[in-house]
Amino acid sequence: MDTYLPPAPAAPRQSLDTRPRLSVHRLDMAHPGDVSALAALLDRGAIEAAGIMAVIGKTEGNGGVNDFTRGYFTQSLMALLAARTGRPAEALLRELPCILSGGTEGVLSPHYVVFARSAPGVANPVDEAQGPQPDGALAIGCALSEPLAAQQVGRWAQVRSVAGAVRDAMREAGIARPEDIAFVQVKCPCVTAARAQAAAAAGHAVLTADANRSMAAARAAGAFGVAIALGELPDDPALESAMLSDFERFSARASVSSGVEVEANEVIVLGRSAAWAGSLRMGCAPMRDALDIGAVAEALRPLGLSAEPQLRPEDAARVAAVFVKCEPDRRGRVRGARHTMLDDTDINAQRHIRGAVGGLVAGVLGDGRIFVSGGAEHQGPDGGGLIAVIAHVG
Amino acid sequence: MDTYLPPAPAAPRQSLDTRPRLSVHRLDMAHPGDVSALAALLDRGAIEAAGIMAVIGKTEGNGGVNDFTRGYFTQSLMALLAARTGRPAEALLRELPCILSGGTEGVLSPHYVVFARSAPGVANPVDEAQGPQPDGALAIGCALSEPLAAQQVGRWAQVRSVAGAVRDAMREAGIARPEDIAFVQVKCPCVTAARAQAAAAAGHAVLTADANRSMAAARAAGAFGVAIALGELPDDPALESAMLSDFERFSARASVSSGVEVEANEVIVLGRSAAWAGSLRMGCAPMRDALDIGAVAEALRPLGLSAEPQLRPEDAARVAAVFVKCEPDRRGRVRGARHTMLDDTDINAQRHIRGAVGGLVAGVLGDGRIFVSGGAEHQGPDGGGLIAVIAHVG
Amino acid sequence: MDTYLPPAPAAPRQSLDTRPRLSVHRLDMAHPGDVSALAALLDRGAIEAAGIMAVIGKTEGNGGVNDFTRGYFTQSLMALLAARTGRPAEALLRELPCILSGGTEGVLSPHYVVFARSAPGVANPVDEAQGPQPDGALAIGCALSEPLAAQQVGRWAQVRSVAGAVRDAMREAGIARPEDIAFVQVKCPCVTAARAQAAAAAGHAVLTADANRSMAAARAAGAFGVAIALGELPDDPALESAMLSDFERFSARASVSSGVEVEANEVIVLGRSAAWAGSLRMGCAPMRDALDIGAVAEALRPLGLSAEPQLRPEDAARVAAVFVKCEPDRRGRVRGARHTMLDDTDINAQRHIRGAVGGLVAGVLGDGRIFVSGGAEHQGPDGGGLIAVIAHVG
Amino acid sequence: MDTYLPPAPAAPRQSLDTRPRLSVHRLDMAHPGDVSALAALLDRGAIEAAGIMAVIGKTEGNGGVNDFTRGYFTQSLMALLAARTGRPAEALLRELPCILSGGTEGVLSPHYVVFARSAPGVANPVDEAQGPQPDGALAIGCALSEPLAAQQVGRWAQVRSVAGAVRDAMREAGIARPEDIAFVQVKCPCVTAARAQAAAAAGHAVLTADANRSMAAARAAGAFGVAIALGELPDDPALESAMLSDFERFSARASVSSGVEVEANEVIVLGRSAAWAGSLRMGCAPMRDALDIGAVAEALRPLGLSAEPQLRPEDAARVAAVFVKCEPDRRGRVRGARHTMLDDTDINAQRHIRGAVGGLVAGVLGDGRIFVSGGAEHQGPDGGGLIAVIAHVG
Repeated sequence: MDTYLPPAPAAPRQSLDTRPRLSVHRLDMAHPGDVSALAALLDRGAIEAAGIMAVIGKTEGNGGVNDFTRGYFTQSLMALLAARTGRPAEALLRELPCILSGGTEGVLSPHYVVFARSAPGVANPVDEAQGPQPDGALAIGCALSEPLAAQQVGRWAQVRSVAGAVRDAMREAGIARPEDIAFVQVKCPCVTAARAQAAAAAGHAVLTADANRSMAAARAAGAFGVAIALGELPDDPALESAMLSDFERFSARASVSSGVEVEANEVIVLGRSAAWAGSLRMGCAPMRDALDIGAVAEALRPLGLSAEPQLRPEDAARVAAVFVKCEPDRRGRVRGARHTMLDDTDINAQRHIRGAVGGLVAGVLGDGRIFVSGGAEHQGPDGGGLIAVIAHVG
Repeated sequence: MDTYLPPAPAAPRQSLDTRPRLSVHRLDMAHPGDVSALAALLDRGAIEAAGIMAVIGKTEGNGGVNDFTRGYFTQSLMALLAARTGRPAEALLRELPCILSGGTEGVLSPHYVVFARSAPGVANPVDEAQGPQPDGALAIGCALSEPLAAQQVGRWAQVRSVAGAVRDAMREAGIARPEDIAFVQVKCPCVTAARAQAAAAAGHAVLTADANRSMAAARAAGAFGVAIALGELPDDPALESAMLSDFERFSARASVSSGVEVEANEVIVLGRSAAWAGSLRMGCAPMRDALDIGAVAEALRPLGLSAEPQLRPEDAARVAAVFVKCEPDRRGRVRGARHTMLDDTDINAQRHIRGAVGGLVAGVLGDGRIFVSGGAEHQGPDGGGLIAVIAHVG
Repeated sequence: MDTYLPPAPAAPRQSLDTRPRLSVHRLDMAHPGDVSALAALLDRGAIEAAGIMAVIGKTEGNGGVNDFTRGYFTQSLMALLAARTGRPAEALLRELPCILSGGTEGVLSPHYVVFARSAPGVANPVDEAQGPQPDGALAIGCALSEPLAAQQVGRWAQVRSVAGAVRDAMREAGIARPEDIAFVQVKCPCVTAARAQAAAAAGHAVLTADANRSMAAARAAGAFGVAIALGELPDDPALESAMLSDFERFSARASVSSGVEVEANEVIVLGRSAAWAGSLRMGCAPMRDALDIGAVAEALRPLGLSAEPQLRPEDAARVAAVFVKCEPDRRGRVRGARHTMLDDTDINAQRHIRGAVGGLVAGVLGDGRIFVSGGAEHQGPDGGGLIAVIAHVG
Repeated sequence: MDTYLPPAPAAPRQSLDTRPRLSVHRLDMAHPGDVSALAALLDRGAIEAAGIMAVIGKTEGNGGVNDFTRGYFTQSLMALLAARTGRPAEALLRELPCILSGGTEGVLSPHYVVFARSAPGVANPVDEAQGPQPDGALAIGCALSEPLAAQQVGRWAQVRSVAGAVRDAMREAGIARPEDIAFVQVKCPCVTAARAQAAAAAGHAVLTADANRSMAAARAAGAFGVAIALGELPDDPALESAMLSDFERFSARASVSSGVEVEANEVIVLGRSAAWAGSLRMGCAPMRDALDIGAVAEALRPLGLSAEPQLRPEDAARVAAVFVKCEPDRRGRVRGARHTMLDDTDINAQRHIRGAVGGLVAGVLGDGRIFVSGGAEHQGPDGGGLIAVIAHVG
């Protein structure tokens, strides 16, 4: 379903290009325990298990605290990779970023995106057609911060920890300049009851002991950390009070989630690097609200893609992955019209907004395999969010 | 929120045009018991209570069997109109079509559309600017069939009953040709346990005694009835077996709901008639699936509207009402990608699809005040549906 | 369904007993707009519309912010009583306490309890059989506090306001001593966004501008107010900090709800008064947790009722109404076993607990017509709540 | 939480008793991937991995088609047992019955019950105190039928297949007479789209191709199969038409589930056998409706347990496991009072009834660790179900 066939080669084989190449595979799952598509990819040698750098996916749970589809998929993935790499699943769990968002409302389709780096010397036939690519190609870098203490969650210490991890990941990716970064995915720890008690016993005060509130605070700090590393905000501790209050301040390229399962800030950086080869590029644009269809066009433009009003099938086949952050507008209205997402006792507000924005973006792209995640505090404009697209060019 | 200011008059006052004029008001509600926007409209004389022909709206319940926001709004509306017309609410309830769809998922906004006919001799300042309009303007007609027996529900007898009511409504509207009809809204009775028992006692067999299944059968028969009246299908009783089985047969202009609260088929016909004046026109287009953003453009085209990718605010202000029918694809996939709507025990499939398609259409129009209704059997293509737009032109 | 036939008279007719008599009718509804059972009661003269003192009921919505079944039932009730009393519905809405809880989970059945006072000189045949009743009978009194300012919500000013209203209602009921009070139902205003802004403009600070949090704070203050009036807690402003933090402090006879639709504290007091006649009595007992089946037995005991393990049908027929408050234990466990109510993104925790405790109480009584309400802060023990039963005796 | 300390030995050690002993462990889980309690049991040698006969549990999903907590727990359990037995997880999955019900509504607590058989020669200290036990003790037997063809599902062929498997399991358990059987748990295959197509290609007609309907038909056939093996119904193929239509016919000791993950009928039989030793016994009683608290007392009576109104803590500690089947009454009323479970679009009817009946049973037992499962067609009386309890005696 995910195969892109490039145009016939117009140039001779560039066999001297030894730069690494990123491959991005968007794979279906029949249920959250199904990793057979990745197994098939490994079986036919399309990628190597040891080359997998990160996985980002959408599973079909409710996306809330009691969404166990994320844990189920993670367990299934790590069991597969443990069998293929010979390493213990527990070690892989600590080292391989696997960031999942639950909730495939409406037309959204459960899927996962596997980011793999080519083994040295292995030529990618897609790339070979493309010539020297002096500007480089899409690169990936991952980093893990030091473990974060509970009392640091949602405070400037976390902001700086995330910013540091973003810089580490940039270095790993070989991305020289912040403006070359297209998209940063972060997963942050939050405060659990147990961590709050441990902090109190050690004489520290946590920002909040409420797990849900600490997750929001952690997402805010994650977004601010990215914004500092990208130069979107200054590293000024006085801004701590702006988190979760001044929503005019945001990163236009950060996507942050938070969960009890991590103890350090996990960072995945994607951007252009001259040290990488290949046909993949990435575009990203802020969404000003849940109706901002123009942002989709803006994210597609640098990729040479245009939807009038929908991507043509041959262009849709060039799209490798799509990432969206969004929010139910907390003021209760979208462009003046009252919405009912925030007061619905039956359906969680995040499920509402994922379904609506997912429907819009899927309609433009002609494809429901889109990563749409809520909890977009300071990730794009207030009441909106952002959209990022990876596609093959050339 | 809903006021359209036309361009300055380019022609002298057409005071001799005595044709009726349709006005369409899209009104907000703060909750399902709030009809204050209509009260204000009546207070300031924008429309007359006696001129109201029909009301179509979306309330913020779950859209299912236990959605009481429809009954609450209806009770509130009829109490207001009883006070303003001096007629009993019970009589109004029987005579005035009030068709509500519950469920304002995602960015959809609770609202109601009031269709009113000008009183004789009352000039509409919008229309006066437009000259003679020899092709006429948007017209409305309503009709009620004879009460439908329980054993007729979902059978060819209902198909013909609906077709007859559509023809009655066309006559009332002064619409001469089926091809001038833009959109037909139907509300059909279904089989309740009580009606099934009464039919059995009289020696008749009902198609199904299951309320939910009979509602689907009634919607199918309603759609076939419209299709016959519009010449989309022949009046061939052999087609009875095609209902709910051959989804290649459909009406591209029918929107049908079914409910326990009606005993006869209620029909509202909208289309162009030379006997009416005014600036309103209507476009309608089938949607081939839940991602068919092209259908929105197609429905806008005859109205002189174009979204690139979104209606400009001045064009959005010309839109008076939008109606959408849609369905979660019963084959479990949208363009090859698995969706999870049909197997979700937490969120009803109709809520999923309304949220997704509502998000798409609202994104193109830049406005969440859209009537989106599920249960689209034979109303547009299988797995898709249709979209209809009313707008001011000229 | 609701008729209690007393034993044959054992004493001569007490025609000189001119004391008022309370009648309590538990009525079914087919849907939230159905008040036909009350209309029938009025039609056959069982009670007089002008004698109705209060209504407490359960409607079948979700019980959350977007539960409109409460408003729908209230509108329907007030329209009926307006027609029967000749008074405007708006005036009745302000004066007649109508306290509804949404959510009939599991075996709970939608119903409403009408409290009516006999007209002077009208003899109740049930009562006549019972002799002089020197200890009196169940009495009712209602009171409304002064309007509550937004900045008073959740603070000691509200506590005292509620306590004062409880004392007013006691006086109206003719209940002399706090220990004669069986049960107090309170409805409190909360802080809305509009009220918070008005308070800020006047230079006042509200406790919280979050509607849901202010509702919890208002319920806490309501419970403390009842506790003070009943002598369960001292009138000590230093206790303000105990609200929503020290759950060892509670009233064992208070049931409090909060809503945006009231601006003053509404109080209904039920208890024994020598000034009233009749066969009705009331028992009340605290529930220490959601499994406290012993509390049901304790509430039944003073009524001469015993469930072994269930009320016999002839005893169940003597029960006139049942009221329960309960809470999902906020510590996440019930008697050491983990529960999942608080972390369920699909079903609201209050819906979970109402279904479970409703199932338990209905099983003991053999009847699902039970008023079960969540939000039991300081209304009975932490993690538990309370149960109150009205029954005919003698 | 699960330790039962028997009274001090009153008899000398029965070291010559070489009969097998059943142990039943009720274990907590922190989430559906948590099998640490079983790992701890194995670590301390309380049971042997190879002695585990069956697992029955409740996980915290929604209990519907998209409840993946069952698959997640099963994967986690089989991974643990594979590591401890050295056998492949796939083989264990085929051979070890693991029957899970999703949905821990209200006070229900996620848990699993592990049935293990003592290794030859290993003495159980509990049993040693009890003397010769000539009547035997609780025994377990499991059996798997031949794979069931899709066209057999819901038909008499399945009934007989289940009956045969019950008899096989009785033999394995060493239970001589049907009247000694206390409880039979069955898991049946259903018709999936793929199986229906394969059957059609081979010229066979399935009863229904709708997965949900075939699951109900399979449960009905499973219940009839148990009833035949237990002598509750005759083996008369003419009864095929009674399935899902004549609900007066039922097994009072069958608990049946159906799922896509099995291809043959899985049967677990529990009952008394003279060939087994130990202190465990089992009681079972039909529930006539969702309020039948008397059935709980009836199931406890043969175990020497009595709830007045609740088990005392020392008696509750003797309870090893509780199994309940229940149903939302399909006629819409419980003892004359309307319920709203069947028409709730927000909460599935099975979730409603599990929460209510679970609350009732948990209240009597004083413990929320109860297996409550819906889908009780022909498993106990119509609108009711059944309850079974395992406890230590003596």
